[in-house]
Amino acid sequence: MSLTEEQKEDIKNQRNSLNETRRAVSEGMEENLYLIHKVLDHGFVRVIDYMGNDTSIVQAARVSYGEGTKKSRDDKSLIFYLMRHWHSTPFEMCEVKLHVKLPVFVARQWIRHRTANVNEYSARYSILDNEFYIPKSENLASQSKSNNQGRGDVLVGEEAKEVIQILKNDSLRSYKSYEEMLSNENKKGLARELARMNLPTNIYTQWYWKTDLHNLFNFIRLRNDQHAQYEIRVYAEKIAELVKKWVPFAFEAFEQYQLNSSQLSANAMTCIKKLLSGGNISQETSGMGKREWLEFCKLIDKDHK
Amino acid sequence: MSLTEEQKEDIKNQRNSLNETRRAVSEGMEENLYLIHKVLDHGFVRVIDYMGNDTSIVQAARVSYGEGTKKSRDDKSLIFYLMRHWHSTPFEMCEVKLHVKLPVFVARQWIRHRTANVNEYSARYSILDNEFYIPKSENLASQSKSNNQGRGDVLVGEEAKEVIQILKNDSLRSYKSYEEMLSNENKKGLARELARMNLPTNIYTQWYWKTDLHNLFNFIRLRNDQHAQYEIRVYAEKIAELVKKWVPFAFEAFEQYQLNSSQLSANAMTCIKKLLSGGNISQETSGMGKREWLEFCKLIDKDHK
Amino acid sequence: MSLTEEQKEDIKNQRNSLNETRRAVSEGMEENLYLIHKVLDHGFVRVIDYMGNDTSIVQAARVSYGEGTKKSRDDKSLIFYLMRHWHSTPFEMCEVKLHVKLPVFVARQWIRHRTANVNEYSARYSILDNEFYIPKSENLASQSKSNNQGRGDVLVGEEAKEVIQILKNDSLRSYKSYEEMLSNENKKGLARELARMNLPTNIYTQWYWKTDLHNLFNFIRLRNDQHAQYEIRVYAEKIAELVKKWVPFAFEAFEQYQLNSSQLSANAMTCIKKLLSGGNISQETSGMGKREWLEFCKLIDKDHK
Amino acid sequence: MSLTEEQKEDIKNQRNSLNETRRAVSEGMEENLYLIHKVLDHGFVRVIDYMGNDTSIVQAARVSYGEGTKKSRDDKSLIFYLMRHWHSTPFEMCEVKLHVKLPVFVARQWIRHRTANVNEYSARYSILDNEFYIPKSENLASQSKSNNQGRGDVLVGEEAKEVIQILKNDSLRSYKSYEEMLSNENKKGLARELARMNLPTNIYTQWYWKTDLHNLFNFIRLRNDQHAQYEIRVYAEKIAELVKKWVPFAFEAFEQYQLNSSQLSANAMTCIKKLLSGGNISQETSGMGKREWLEFCKLIDKDHK
Repeated sequence: MSLTEEQKEDIKNQRNSLNETRRAVSEGMEENLYLIHKVLDHGFVRVIDYMGNDTSIVQAARVSYGEGTKKSRDDKSLIFYLMRHWHSTPFEMCEVKLHVKLPVFVARQWIRHRTANVNEYSARYSILDNEFYIPKSENLASQSKSNNQGRGDVLVGEEAKEVIQILKNDSLRSYKSYEEMLSNENKKGLARELARMNLPTNIYTQWYWKTDLHNLFNFIRLRNDQHAQYEIRVYAEKIAELVKKWVPFAFEAFEQYQLNSSQLSANAMTCIKKLLSGGNISQETSGMGKREWLEFCKLIDKDHK
Repeated sequence: MSLTEEQKEDIKNQRNSLNETRRAVSEGMEENLYLIHKVLDHGFVRVIDYMGNDTSIVQAARVSYGEGTKKSRDDKSLIFYLMRHWHSTPFEMCEVKLHVKLPVFVARQWIRHRTANVNEYSARYSILDNEFYIPKSENLASQSKSNNQGRGDVLVGEEAKEVIQILKNDSLRSYKSYEEMLSNENKKGLARELARMNLPTNIYTQWYWKTDLHNLFNFIRLRNDQHAQYEIRVYAEKIAELVKKWVPFAFEAFEQYQLNSSQLSANAMTCIKKLLSGGNISQETSGMGKREWLEFCKLIDKDHK
Repeated sequence: MSLTEEQKEDIKNQRNSLNETRRAVSEGMEENLYLIHKVLDHGFVRVIDYMGNDTSIVQAARVSYGEGTKKSRDDKSLIFYLMRHWHSTPFEMCEVKLHVKLPVFVARQWIRHRTANVNEYSARYSILDNEFYIPKSENLASQSKSNNQGRGDVLVGEEAKEVIQILKNDSLRSYKSYEEMLSNENKKGLARELARMNLPTNIYTQWYWKTDLHNLFNFIRLRNDQHAQYEIRVYAEKIAELVKKWVPFAFEAFEQYQLNSSQLSANAMTCIKKLLSGGNISQETSGMGKREWLEFCKLIDKDHK
Repeated sequence: MSLTEEQKEDIKNQRNSLNETRRAVSEGMEENLYLIHKVLDHGFVRVIDYMGNDTSIVQAARVSYGEGTKKSRDDKSLIFYLMRHWHSTPFEMCEVKLHVKLPVFVARQWIRHRTANVNEYSARYSILDNEFYIPKSENLASQSKSNNQGRGDVLVGEEAKEVIQILKNDSLRSYKSYEEMLSNENKKGLARELARMNLPTNIYTQWYWKTDLHNLFNFIRLRNDQHAQYEIRVYAEKIAELVKKWVPFAFEAFEQYQLNSSQLSANAMTCIKKLLSGGNISQETSGMGKREWLEFCKLIDKDHK
């Protein structure tokens, strides 16, 4: 990823422009405002704006006239209580706006989170840059044998090289065709909205994306997860780091009660209680299917035989 | 409406707490932050936080690295263009959070705007204050004869006095009953979540309400309208004033292309074209119903005979 | 609750009107269509329409040209898989429309579920019936001592009688005032939209409410819960019964993986693993607060000392 | 577009499966259920399910116990009234579920309509078919000179041939690469979720898409519009035809008050009133910009000089 001099200047100018405000401020977020946080080969996440901090969550939960509670310790305690009891509306009272550069196939997964505001760079209006995501060889996973929607071993040697060469060649060629179709040297030039259809989904796009903290936690929970595709997971991880600096109490509560928590089914709870009271349990008596049973054993560090 | 000393102190402290920020700032909104803007007899609107200003709309529309355009005139021109062509997503990039005190029957209409975040004062958890909306006599309208969902002439004299007396008496009595049921002097005391059911809907509640500028414009368009009930319209009017100071260009565009615009049906457009080309038109030939025809004539200052 | 003869006739007519359709049909739901399912003293839930059945979930998950899988057993297995892995979008492909009669204070909680469509009976347009919710004495709970948002012991004897009398009296009186203000005998008559503000929130209202199965499960999970207020819980319970007949596989999966499941925090999982491997754990070493620890012990049938 | 024999059989079986139902039925929709309505070269729209008909809109607006009004003429009149006064909630009470096959670049525009439920064919899980959208030469528009987001003249002769050849070649080549990367003959085979990134956005995808009538009208209004890209407009047109058969009254009202209506700005209304009262008006005195003035003149058949 490379920025033009003008873009660097724009970012620098915004960084240097300090204003006075009466609003709630998050020091951790101010530090990160406008900066480029690199993701993948040409992508990034930038925080453009934010509303609120940990105190705002408390303030909203109390529908108060002033700031949160009097002591920061009480704020933390209330935030943990709210998260633990699924009181999600106070977390909706914080908002963040990001500028994200990401491959189109990642954007297609991302947009499925509907409770958000989006402004995407328009390929009907403008010409897309010649930047494509080419995975590093260590991320070239094979199709999983056991899971239709997953990855298996990493490709190595010649196969890996070939895949990367194919992706590079096809990207180059399709971008060349794109330019050729758009060109109006001695001809009319195809409309941008049509020419773009030739571009593969590893091309990069950009958008402004705005959402509230509750929905952002949902995004992180689903995308910063081993079942999510690697290429969106790295965005979710980067965003998680930023959120941690923005609202440290809320993030800690989120980690404790959501991100690192486990949802145990009715059957799983019955099994745990049996085991704790000295009983025995096997897949056959657990009421679970085979894969579910294996997952359960892993969850509680149990030998699954 | 009266604030406790502590509440006044809270507001004053927040007003005086100035912080440095790198974020976009709206001078017009900073002026209003945290202040009480009175509405009805005990209600108010307070701006608690905001995100973005006119420049942010431009910035999002361009998915830009820096601020909006280079010249403020170009910003305005683009904002007008966006509003005129229903490009609503850039307006969603501004957000505002309000603290509102309002009668329950107004809150019931307000909450129908679903694209918003809400934290309401909980009458399961806390005891409601003894504050009820009692209309001024000039707002005591009679039921409209022609429109089932509207108001007719204002009540006067004895009838007005009686209505006000009834409302006052019933409010007092129901609040007294509320306190009596809650009381645990020599008894258990009814649960708050049950006792509150006795309170009429002119009692005041409070909430934190957060929405984006696009949805706020929808709210203003629908509620700052002659068909809206007076008691919610005054809130919409007050909010409109605040928005005007927050994003002056966007608000001017909103007034021009939405608030003060007219939606003309296919038939109405045909009629206008006929009239402009010297033709004649009557209700019978207009394709409109009677009331629709009257509304149309009024819209174009036409004698409706 | 009493229906007019005309209303009974309307329901009977709709019940008797059988049409042929090519759409997916749920026998369990057809049985219940239009019927009054009583809730509280005057309330009800009626199914007005539905879209889809268990097969539709499978069909959507597969984006298929035909119905679900070939065997009903495979359908069930896929539905359980989807629910277990939080693949919520296929459940959104079923939709239901209810006609609900409910007290206003219940309606105010219900409406907080934003992802739904609502048409409420308009008290601006029409006159509300003289029907108020008066709790049975066995539901007259006192305020909880330990939980600000909860109920304690049930009121008994004189106190219970008095509460019921207060609620009855105040309901009657406020309705009488309502009628008096509306009356246009020898006077103008107050506008309906104003007069209604005098009515307490135990008055009944009605609405058509439409939502998808995924969001309905959220509703049931949150409202058919011990922390929910009794008066909304009974609606959630009734709806749960109807859903069970509509989409039996999906409902069973919902019970297993959501309704009767437990969310265990990061700390709780660490504790369970310690206990299972023979270790010991106390509140002090658990990382949990006091109340959290008690809840955890209860969850796993552990002596909390 | 070609269906497999199995797919044809599936559709036929569903068409032939007639069930009895007590639900509201739309004859116009029953006729179309499951049928393939071709769009573009390989795309289609199929109605999979629907909820409600014109009567349901009336029923919801009245929150009634039975069907709509007694006379179909009154139903129509009420529906027109609701549409004219932007009472949108009764239209939300009808729902439709479509199976759509469409190019990815069209899907990317479509998904911006957030108030809908979607299940897309997963290219992480399954292998995409070798079907790409190749425009007909009469749809090969050049980039507009005057409008950055639009089309100008149609390409002709050699230029058109070349564009089509480029699109065909690149589609073929990228699909061949896709297959090669996936192949596990003598190698591991790249994961599907990675290989798909090489495919251009004119490849076809499929989804189940479900929305309510109000939001569907929004979709049609925005996409069945001259400013929308041709390739999504043809889908909107096809859907409009289906809606017309589903809810004929609602669709007629939609055409009258929305689709074929005009939104006139505050300035435009002032101009019209001046013109109607015999006055004169020019761009300079209109308060409009140049392009806005031209559009206004076109709207009222006025000579714009």
